[in-house]
Amino acid sequence: MTLKYYHAEPLANSLKSMIPLREKGLAYESHYVDLHRFEQHSDWFVRVNPEGQVPVLDHDGTIITHTTVINEYLEDAFPDDNPADGPLRPRDPVGAARMRYWNKFVDEQVMNFVSMHGWHRLIRQITKSIEEDRFEEIMSHVPLPDQRAKWRTARSGFAQKDLDHAMEKIDYALVKVEAQLGETAYLAGDAYTLADINFYSHCGVMANRMFPDLDVDTRFPNLVGWRERISDRPAVQAALTSEDRTQPGLRTWSGDGREE
Amino acid sequence: MTLKYYHAEPLANSLKSMIPLREKGLAYESHYVDLHRFEQHSDWFVRVNPEGQVPVLDHDGTIITHTTVINEYLEDAFPDDNPADGPLRPRDPVGAARMRYWNKFVDEQVMNFVSMHGWHRLIRQITKSIEEDRFEEIMSHVPLPDQRAKWRTARSGFAQKDLDHAMEKIDYALVKVEAQLGETAYLAGDAYTLADINFYSHCGVMANRMFPDLDVDTRFPNLVGWRERISDRPAVQAALTSEDRTQPGLRTWSGDGREE
Repeated sequence: MTLKYYHAEPLANSLKSMIPLREKGLAYESHYVDLHRFEQHSDWFVRVNPEGQVPVLDHDGTIITHTTVINEYLEDAFPDDNPADGPLRPRDPVGAARMRYWNKFVDEQVMNFVSMHGWHRLIRQITKSIEEDRFEEIMSHVPLPDQRAKWRTARSGFAQKDLDHAMEKIDYALVKVEAQLGETAYLAGDAYTLADINFYSHCGVMANRMFPDLDVDTRFPNLVGWRERISDRPAVQAALTSEDRTQPGLRTWSGDGREE
Repeated sequence: MTLKYYHAEPLANSLKSMIPLREKGLAYESHYVDLHRFEQHSDWFVRVNPEGQVPVLDHDGTIITHTTVINEYLEDAFPDDNPADGPLRPRDPVGAARMRYWNKFVDEQVMNFVSMHGWHRLIRQITKSIEEDRFEEIMSHVPLPDQRAKWRTARSGFAQKDLDHAMEKIDYALVKVEAQLGETAYLAGDAYTLADINFYSHCGVMANRMFPDLDVDTRFPNLVGWRERISDRPAVQAALTSEDRTQPGLRTWSGDGREE
């Protein structure tokens, strides 16, 4: 049995499916895809995933894409490989439904809004020095029309009203998560699940560094406790310290760098 | 065991979870929620679902919301109640992943864009005769900020560029579905699954009537055959002919009425 995981830096989508692989103790071949060199649009990678996006799971030649789908797949395909404190998807139907409610919330109401701010900072830096002809050549290799549109917008800069709206959505999500964590230890109940891994990877792990104006560490104490419990897990530590080739000056998304 | 299903007309979200209930032969109490009278924002309904949205499944007092979550819940909670041609969620991990890939596509790339056109036609008609004070009073009962924004936009009319973009997304989805149905009998493979029910309910069942300019019945023969196979299913027939209190003149969404 061979598992290959194609991914970029351990943040957002690439982190989100790496954590379950580590939590489940599944050995996998790590294939780093260099987004700074547009490798996700290269011929070899588009043969792996015609949508030209990371991450991708290859399980004995079967390709699974989209992190929420990958993570449920890992639960279906490897039901007996679980962390010591239990499976990442609750076995009871109500618990699984709570997990999916939160996954859906993160996928549809959080991920794209954090991503917009990440792209606004990072992709603008990456693309601003590229000549128009070269940029158009790069765009010609982007398979999904929506992704092409996002690249163009990121290069020219997202509209301030869209950035402001995204910030409102992120704040709304933080307030909602904080309230839930006042009632239960984890998002879907008392157990750590894929829903926690989802919000953590897309927002929780870096919201305090990425959005200092939101005063995350002051306003959301339940979230801080939850974040630290998750960050302390050995599987999460292993994922977070995996390969990161982002130039330090470009680490604006994760908050490790400074905006130029 | 008591199942209650709170729903509006058998179209879009309300249809999407009604079909699995029927396919699985599960007896349920039908609770009609009258969207034309804003009953989804009423005190009694917001006590059922604090988000003020239909449909809702109540299983012995446990509330499950969001149709993709409800439909997976029904598979988890009633694994042995299946239509004669097999379960609605494939039992093999790869089949389940294919189903979730398509569910995610419909949830994120199709549903809101068809919905925008439906709201643009229907909600404008419903709200245009309402005085400003009364409209603001109605808005004060809408729990979700995003939904309030959508109501306001629908009342004044969506921007043409947003409607055009939505139409591009719908056309893209129809082309993608047509290609898939050229390779497999159903979206996730050879079996009818929740993914088919999802696309059917949000787009497939009414795209030809709702968007005559798209020439669905001419351009997408695979989709037409698939639509007819699904429409012929007794469970789907039973759902489609359930209660519909929409005034005939307002059936612009389903295409049964004419735009005024």
